[in-house]
Amino acid sequence: MSTLHDRAVRGFASDNYSGIHPEVLAAIAAANEGHQVAYGEDAYTARLQEVFAAHFGDGVEAFPVFNGTGANVTGLQSMLPRWGAVIAAGTAHINVDEGGAPEKVGGLKLLTVPTEDGKLTPDLIDREAWGWGDEHRAQPLVVSITQSTELGTVYTADEVRAIADHAHARGMRLHMDGARISNAAAALDLPLRAFTRDAGVDVLSFGGTKNGAMLGEAIVVMDPAASDGLIYLRKLNMQLASKMRFVSAQLVALLSDDLYLRNARHANAMAARLRAGVEAGIADGSIRGVGFTQATQANGVFATLPDGVADRLRESFRFYDWDAAKNEVRWMCSFDTTEADIDAFIAAIARETA
Amino acid sequence: MSTLHDRAVRGFASDNYSGIHPEVLAAIAAANEGHQVAYGEDAYTARLQEVFAAHFGDGVEAFPVFNGTGANVTGLQSMLPRWGAVIAAGTAHINVDEGGAPEKVGGLKLLTVPTEDGKLTPDLIDREAWGWGDEHRAQPLVVSITQSTELGTVYTADEVRAIADHAHARGMRLHMDGARISNAAAALDLPLRAFTRDAGVDVLSFGGTKNGAMLGEAIVVMDPAASDGLIYLRKLNMQLASKMRFVSAQLVALLSDDLYLRNARHANAMAARLRAGVEAGIADGSIRGVGFTQATQANGVFATLPDGVADRLRESFRFYDWDAAKNEVRWMCSFDTTEADIDAFIAAIARETA
Amino acid sequence: MSTLHDRAVRGFASDNYSGIHPEVLAAIAAANEGHQVAYGEDAYTARLQEVFAAHFGDGVEAFPVFNGTGANVTGLQSMLPRWGAVIAAGTAHINVDEGGAPEKVGGLKLLTVPTEDGKLTPDLIDREAWGWGDEHRAQPLVVSITQSTELGTVYTADEVRAIADHAHARGMRLHMDGARISNAAAALDLPLRAFTRDAGVDVLSFGGTKNGAMLGEAIVVMDPAASDGLIYLRKLNMQLASKMRFVSAQLVALLSDDLYLRNARHANAMAARLRAGVEAGIADGSIRGVGFTQATQANGVFATLPDGVADRLRESFRFYDWDAAKNEVRWMCSFDTTEADIDAFIAAIARETA
Amino acid sequence: MSTLHDRAVRGFASDNYSGIHPEVLAAIAAANEGHQVAYGEDAYTARLQEVFAAHFGDGVEAFPVFNGTGANVTGLQSMLPRWGAVIAAGTAHINVDEGGAPEKVGGLKLLTVPTEDGKLTPDLIDREAWGWGDEHRAQPLVVSITQSTELGTVYTADEVRAIADHAHARGMRLHMDGARISNAAAALDLPLRAFTRDAGVDVLSFGGTKNGAMLGEAIVVMDPAASDGLIYLRKLNMQLASKMRFVSAQLVALLSDDLYLRNARHANAMAARLRAGVEAGIADGSIRGVGFTQATQANGVFATLPDGVADRLRESFRFYDWDAAKNEVRWMCSFDTTEADIDAFIAAIARETA
Repeated sequence: MSTLHDRAVRGFASDNYSGIHPEVLAAIAAANEGHQVAYGEDAYTARLQEVFAAHFGDGVEAFPVFNGTGANVTGLQSMLPRWGAVIAAGTAHINVDEGGAPEKVGGLKLLTVPTEDGKLTPDLIDREAWGWGDEHRAQPLVVSITQSTELGTVYTADEVRAIADHAHARGMRLHMDGARISNAAAALDLPLRAFTRDAGVDVLSFGGTKNGAMLGEAIVVMDPAASDGLIYLRKLNMQLASKMRFVSAQLVALLSDDLYLRNARHANAMAARLRAGVEAGIADGSIRGVGFTQATQANGVFATLPDGVADRLRESFRFYDWDAAKNEVRWMCSFDTTEADIDAFIAAIARETA
Repeated sequence: MSTLHDRAVRGFASDNYSGIHPEVLAAIAAANEGHQVAYGEDAYTARLQEVFAAHFGDGVEAFPVFNGTGANVTGLQSMLPRWGAVIAAGTAHINVDEGGAPEKVGGLKLLTVPTEDGKLTPDLIDREAWGWGDEHRAQPLVVSITQSTELGTVYTADEVRAIADHAHARGMRLHMDGARISNAAAALDLPLRAFTRDAGVDVLSFGGTKNGAMLGEAIVVMDPAASDGLIYLRKLNMQLASKMRFVSAQLVALLSDDLYLRNARHANAMAARLRAGVEAGIADGSIRGVGFTQATQANGVFATLPDGVADRLRESFRFYDWDAAKNEVRWMCSFDTTEADIDAFIAAIARETA
Repeated sequence: MSTLHDRAVRGFASDNYSGIHPEVLAAIAAANEGHQVAYGEDAYTARLQEVFAAHFGDGVEAFPVFNGTGANVTGLQSMLPRWGAVIAAGTAHINVDEGGAPEKVGGLKLLTVPTEDGKLTPDLIDREAWGWGDEHRAQPLVVSITQSTELGTVYTADEVRAIADHAHARGMRLHMDGARISNAAAALDLPLRAFTRDAGVDVLSFGGTKNGAMLGEAIVVMDPAASDGLIYLRKLNMQLASKMRFVSAQLVALLSDDLYLRNARHANAMAARLRAGVEAGIADGSIRGVGFTQATQANGVFATLPDGVADRLRESFRFYDWDAAKNEVRWMCSFDTTEADIDAFIAAIARETA
Repeated sequence: MSTLHDRAVRGFASDNYSGIHPEVLAAIAAANEGHQVAYGEDAYTARLQEVFAAHFGDGVEAFPVFNGTGANVTGLQSMLPRWGAVIAAGTAHINVDEGGAPEKVGGLKLLTVPTEDGKLTPDLIDREAWGWGDEHRAQPLVVSITQSTELGTVYTADEVRAIADHAHARGMRLHMDGARISNAAAALDLPLRAFTRDAGVDVLSFGGTKNGAMLGEAIVVMDPAASDGLIYLRKLNMQLASKMRFVSAQLVALLSDDLYLRNARHANAMAARLRAGVEAGIADGSIRGVGFTQATQANGVFATLPDGVADRLRESFRFYDWDAAKNEVRWMCSFDTTEADIDAFIAAIARETA
């Protein structure tokens, strides 16, 4: 089969518009040929356990799955009895972007809280952290946070720790949706474990797809007491790859030679370059009427544009409205975004807003 | 990441122990680089629709998913109201090998019938095809058959047609689990559509993984009136790939240049060679005490062995017990099984049974 | 078995603390003896259809169930595909008081909106009425309102009509949780159909338990096109009474001789008496520091009390905190609340707040 | 509301065609008036715990629910993780008569075994008791038996004990569907606990409805270690009665003064009279062509009739076909069946088969 698309076209729509990092593709090829036991008893999945242990410490267990929704729903199910509920930000991916999978497949009740920046706090959690023992209320037994958030912000290690302590003190566990955890690691300049396991996270969805994998995430159990039955839940939730070696090999590649970090640092740097460039344009008057709605801490930039500008820009660069009523847009950078892409985009913004 | 396994080792455990066919891996690489719209609006998924139309005729619609369980459960859900039930063989993969996903995620009741050879017939279907309108009975509204079956047998086009007519006349739809549909096409020496769409199949799980893909299946809707909401169900069932281009590209590769057929013909031929070789050994006395429990029509051989032979053989060749109580084993061949593999295995069987 | 409780004690905790109205109990007895077909093919369920038709017009169909949660979840399921979501007030019983049954049993996603008074409006609905066709979003296809609301307020017929028109214009259906619909009818002084079927409600949970029944509600389908499969869904949701005659007889009794209205008018009048009495006490200075947080339109009074008063009052009269952080309490009246109960309670409030 | 049916008509269709025993109706009336805490904190539910303890021993806990399907599904859910399966007879009510509720609401996989007489044995259980630890197989962790069975047969205490020991030795728990447990107690002439708790049953569905209640069953937990979260599961499964006092009062009445036993003995005696009368007719030639397919140990008689006889009999006495293909019918007796009913029916059988 030949290439059907223009390999030179990139945009700012999503980090999952990008493809496979060459080192990841090479890892898939390296894992090929010969026979390996299916469903996870292969050499690459065994290596993956070692790699995760190197990053997160002994005793963690990783369960490769297909995608982020699968990682979140399956991981959360493993943390909760049938009567459990999850406290999450209203903007959480599990609440707004998973087609109801947490409720419909997971049987989970989400108790959501509005936030300014996509980040929960102990105070915000307390709005829904009540009613234990009351059978009329789905029991809030897990808090789920997203790192980096859907709004491009990042929890500090101390913030995660404060949430973990708060949750644990109330008998709740802490789940982290880490679809973009590498971007957070790059932003914080911290080892992965510093703001996850060491900060009290119990179960993590470790994201690979948005950071250079073809497809592949892992549910990482930090505290075995926080999760039950994942081997069964992964299968019944239809997230068990038969040729798992190829999912595991991708994650091994990302977690080797700091590829996860190189990719994320690059994506973050491109977002910072975009933000800085537009801010410079605002400062020098070459860009007008553009504002920002969130801090740019990871690989996403959230901006407001003058009427009509978004559509004109989209003739050349694909990206999404975030809140059309406010002319708010989201610009995502990925591992393969180039400085030239950024500079061309800034120039276009200047052109369209001048 | 380097290769961690011995690429020269193959066995007879499962066709999903094999890796990625080189043409499929090349297709993944060809689809790489640049940005493509996520979640299916990419050039490769568009091409996939054309490729499926070429094989199955105009009007079919294909929904790529991650794995066979996902294809079966999601496809069946799309065919059934919440109160529906599925008539299937007791040996069906959906009944015995999917961890309860049809019931637990799909909310489907399975009405199972024992068979001799894994194949349903109109008479067997009638054992469970009753009770419509009775609210105490989950309503049997779909018949599901597996082609080729879990026992290595194959439905003829006429047999599928008879089942389809029987089902349709009773207001039921016909689903086909085609995890090994390519092996059936090779066995029947018929175009794919001849024993699916043209024979009355309404919704098909088209399997790629067991026939040379890294991972990827497709739910193929033959009759749009038989299926509802697949776009939503795929998402909520956590089977929607963000970088779908790489799943679609694999399926395009398989369905191009008859790769699906070349792979399947080879696997079937290897199974036939194995069966013939053992039968020859039985005939000439070099192999003793071995019998066969099923016809070898596709890529699996089901045999009974003298006590202790299976375990001794497994010191060199991996394969599974099928029914340990009967000393029954299953030997699967795949696209990468070699004639030398077969001959070495036959020799080992002779050695261990002499 | 003898009586185990003090029949003279009543409080203000909930209308479901009350017992069975004598006319309802007589109806159960009248339906007793002899054999009647189980599961709804009995004379009392047939009569119930006639009685509902008399109140709501020809063409409505009523499905008796056990309780309000069962009526809501089963009715909503019948209105929605597996990928559907329900827009509701954050205070809705389905959201806060059903143990997650809508999500966990119904597989429904709730899209909730904060309100001041428990009542949705077209504008409030629009906060969540978007995203049709987007597979990442559970599809908002039903609006659910509660009449009278959980906050003791009542939608006018015009308000219901505005919501129905708004929903229908967007392809959504309107569900009404009528656990206290009789109190609304009494408050509005309108026939039941005037603010339900005639105002565009598609499916109604008709409540009996809180208004003098022992137990029994009915899912009432106003527009058959809005609901599918209720006969099956009621059974599989475990809401099908075998001896249904005794559930139906209770509802027939309530809907005959205006018993539903007599009971509700009385309960509403008692709430009004309580409110008026406290307001008079505030005016004449005999009651101090008491406020009201909601209009008293049906049979509930929502008040704020000085610190400590609630607990002292509860030594004699049982009632619940509504929002303990605000010293807000809820006082519910029922069909058997007496004027003497009210007057004694007002006197106690005066005593404790003087 | 007046009586709408002929109180003198009875048949043999089902024990749930009968009404409310006068002592049960009196108990409902005795529990009426005044206010009682809703949802189970009432005096009657407290008394119910004492009554169950008197019958089953200290430490049992009873959870009143609405109906048998609710008791079974909720009880089984409390015994199983999300990945669990239940081994049951193919004829079990949970498999054939609950509209798929165990799968669709409970998320349970049923592993069914064909039986001759509706009774499991250790050997039959072993057909499905395997595969623990294999994620591809829903994990068989509970065995469910029905006492008395759907075929009118009764397990001896020793048979129950053998099954319980067998299950427990394999890490499985034992559930008993006791919709007709009183008939079994009468048949065995044993205290309830002798063939339940003392024989190793872990969780019991205690049936009231078929034995003289209006509606009401209880999930009875014999071993607290075998069940988790019932208080929450009952609510979310929509089985929590608000005015629970009236459900509990019925069960208290049945379990007081041996009413459960008086009713069941009578029903069993009527079935025995019917069987004996028909057998006498066969012996003396007054009844021809009638046979029996099951032992008559409780309150049901299973018979085969000559062609056409069933329909002619049904002109006067209502009853159901059991297996129409074999002319097999089921005749059920209940607490209110009279000797005159039986004798008239025997006479009719003689008339129609002469």
